[in-house]
Amino acid sequence: MRIEILNTGTELLLGNTLNTHGAWLGRELLPMGLRVARQTTVPDGPAIRESLSEILARADVLIATGGLGPTSDDITRELTAEALGLELDQDPAARRSIEAFFAIRNRPMAEANLKQALCPVGGEILPNPNGTAPGIYLPPALNPWFPCAVFLLPGPPREMMPMFHAEVAPRLRVLSGIGNPPDCVSLKFAGIGESDFHDGIDARLAAIPELEFGYCAHIGEVDLRLIGTPDAILAAREIVSARFGDYLVSSDGSSLEETVVRLLTESRLTLATAESCTGGMISNRLTNVPGSSAVFTHGFVTYANEAKTTMLDVPARLIGENGAVSEPVALAMADGALARSGADLAVAVTGIAGPSGGTPEKPAGTAWLALARKGASTRAWRVFQPRNRLDFKLGISQTALDAVRKSLCGIP
Amino acid sequence: MRIEILNTGTELLLGNTLNTHGAWLGRELLPMGLRVARQTTVPDGPAIRESLSEILARADVLIATGGLGPTSDDITRELTAEALGLELDQDPAARRSIEAFFAIRNRPMAEANLKQALCPVGGEILPNPNGTAPGIYLPPALNPWFPCAVFLLPGPPREMMPMFHAEVAPRLRVLSGIGNPPDCVSLKFAGIGESDFHDGIDARLAAIPELEFGYCAHIGEVDLRLIGTPDAILAAREIVSARFGDYLVSSDGSSLEETVVRLLTESRLTLATAESCTGGMISNRLTNVPGSSAVFTHGFVTYANEAKTTMLDVPARLIGENGAVSEPVALAMADGALARSGADLAVAVTGIAGPSGGTPEKPAGTAWLALARKGASTRAWRVFQPRNRLDFKLGISQTALDAVRKSLCGIP
Repeated sequence: MRIEILNTGTELLLGNTLNTHGAWLGRELLPMGLRVARQTTVPDGPAIRESLSEILARADVLIATGGLGPTSDDITRELTAEALGLELDQDPAARRSIEAFFAIRNRPMAEANLKQALCPVGGEILPNPNGTAPGIYLPPALNPWFPCAVFLLPGPPREMMPMFHAEVAPRLRVLSGIGNPPDCVSLKFAGIGESDFHDGIDARLAAIPELEFGYCAHIGEVDLRLIGTPDAILAAREIVSARFGDYLVSSDGSSLEETVVRLLTESRLTLATAESCTGGMISNRLTNVPGSSAVFTHGFVTYANEAKTTMLDVPARLIGENGAVSEPVALAMADGALARSGADLAVAVTGIAGPSGGTPEKPAGTAWLALARKGASTRAWRVFQPRNRLDFKLGISQTALDAVRKSLCGIP
Repeated sequence: MRIEILNTGTELLLGNTLNTHGAWLGRELLPMGLRVARQTTVPDGPAIRESLSEILARADVLIATGGLGPTSDDITRELTAEALGLELDQDPAARRSIEAFFAIRNRPMAEANLKQALCPVGGEILPNPNGTAPGIYLPPALNPWFPCAVFLLPGPPREMMPMFHAEVAPRLRVLSGIGNPPDCVSLKFAGIGESDFHDGIDARLAAIPELEFGYCAHIGEVDLRLIGTPDAILAAREIVSARFGDYLVSSDGSSLEETVVRLLTESRLTLATAESCTGGMISNRLTNVPGSSAVFTHGFVTYANEAKTTMLDVPARLIGENGAVSEPVALAMADGALARSGADLAVAVTGIAGPSGGTPEKPAGTAWLALARKGASTRAWRVFQPRNRLDFKLGISQTALDAVRKSLCGIP
């Protein structure tokens, strides 16, 4: 089944707005066993016409986003009807829903909004609980010359995504005759690189029948995607776990910080952070997770040396003798954070993000990390990640959070 | 001049990798007075063929990215030559450059890499200082049936972007006969919304001849894009400054945190932060800016109530009587951060990010902010931003940083 995506929107081609629809739809279709054959972006307005007619002649399914709004350059609905030779008719339910949207918000409805209740004859209105523009589904039988199923979806992601799940995905399953779509699992690893997989288990995974797999490397993280029959995925997971189990962060798409918050919650432990070079990125990532307030209590962002002394009781002499980026200072920061916060664990980082501030002995990219835990001896280790400033912060925060994960899992 | 972009790469359609090339190229072309007429994404392999021939028949300029690598599915070079009826020839300089790339890194060169030295006859090799795949430029005169200028660029952004600046942009200027491209200025505002502009100055901007303008709204921020003659832009800036000058963050693309760090540096003042609901996002944003270590000294992430007391000397009684999200607590946090850090300014935030934790009197989305400054009285104010957790954090951090900006600029 050939699926094409058409994204309309001048802002996407001017570069003001990043087009995330293509990637998102690709990710959603994959576990259904479906692929995108082509993705096209055109500006709002009549340029949509030529793309539409080409795709209708070529594809089995067209998913178009955008151009369903109330203004004059929102003409996807009209041009699609024209290309398929269909009349437009006002849908009474769609009209009531649009009127209700404004009534609930106590706002007057412009006459222009009523054009959003128009639907090509033979099509179905797809409800939009998150906005005024309903979607439209046109079954493939409406025009014998273009037997292409058409989904017209609103442009804003927070309207498009729920509509895809509620209205598009079920219809695609019927259209494609998916019986048992292949399972799809994404395993997230931290602390090892893509090449470790290539060297370690690539050949063994490739030998599993009916398994498709692929890697996606991020900073401090590798995702392994497994697609296939349940047996094939089980066989793959056994190989991977035996070799790299200690590095496995999640198999349900959870981020490292979500995993750390879950582990802390389950073990009823609390965490404090002491950050110099990451400047609050670790605490920011932790507090992105709902429920983190129960387990993350204190964050010390000690960017200045003097802050390390006053906030964490790191002796000024220690910094003077060893430098702020050193094993003794990292250890003292972690111990100080543990003592000051009363938390069960504390992780500390101190390093040189760059671009300036490096020396031949401690070039930009150098960092010392330390982990303190009640009743255990504090340990520190050095890492070297020469990257641009933001990637360095991300990489070091990843290493720090992964050390907390391993400690909570009892992994040495 | 009709410009089309063709992005090749299976990973872009599977959704593993976000296609940022389209948006980036759109942003780069705009100040040259050029627009993208269509952007197409296809998987690696033969699917490229059909798209290529369609675009060659339609466009004046084709910019294609990806598919120039050494492996068997990298066939953009070969298919483009085929579509234009051109032979491929090995370019001696390109061959030497590829051999040198491996020699410098002391790595053996695979025979497959030599295919990257192939160039259609009549084309020009575009050097790639950042990778092994050189780019290719094919002038429009090579095939009389398809008078389309073709740029083949490597897929990785860190190779494609420098090549665009060094090799593509100068040729596009010649091809398009750009004499004086229109000026392009982007003004960034905080603390007002897009509708303030619509109601306030839209009509006056629209009356300026030879001016094109547009808005792009983000959380807590609006970008106003001005394109036109220097006189038109000057006239627009005068109207905007007179009305909204206090809200102007930058006119050179600088972010709010970059502006705050610059203002602190220029006035030789230091800043401390006291964050509850934003959980370190403010300090994280500040420390993303190179040079921030000279002006940002202490960050207190007091997520737990007890942390507000021990780290910032907020009396426990004050929290008990008023709740953690209250005016007295916000004031005490800011004062405590100022006193503990010795910084010149301190900004404090305390709020309810949600999804849980809200009450009828203080629903999720409520926050109290406070700003303390040496020698001035500390002031606090309430905001209500009912959003999802991450957008709430971003919105509140935006409000906090903007309060610092206004204080540094002497804006009440």
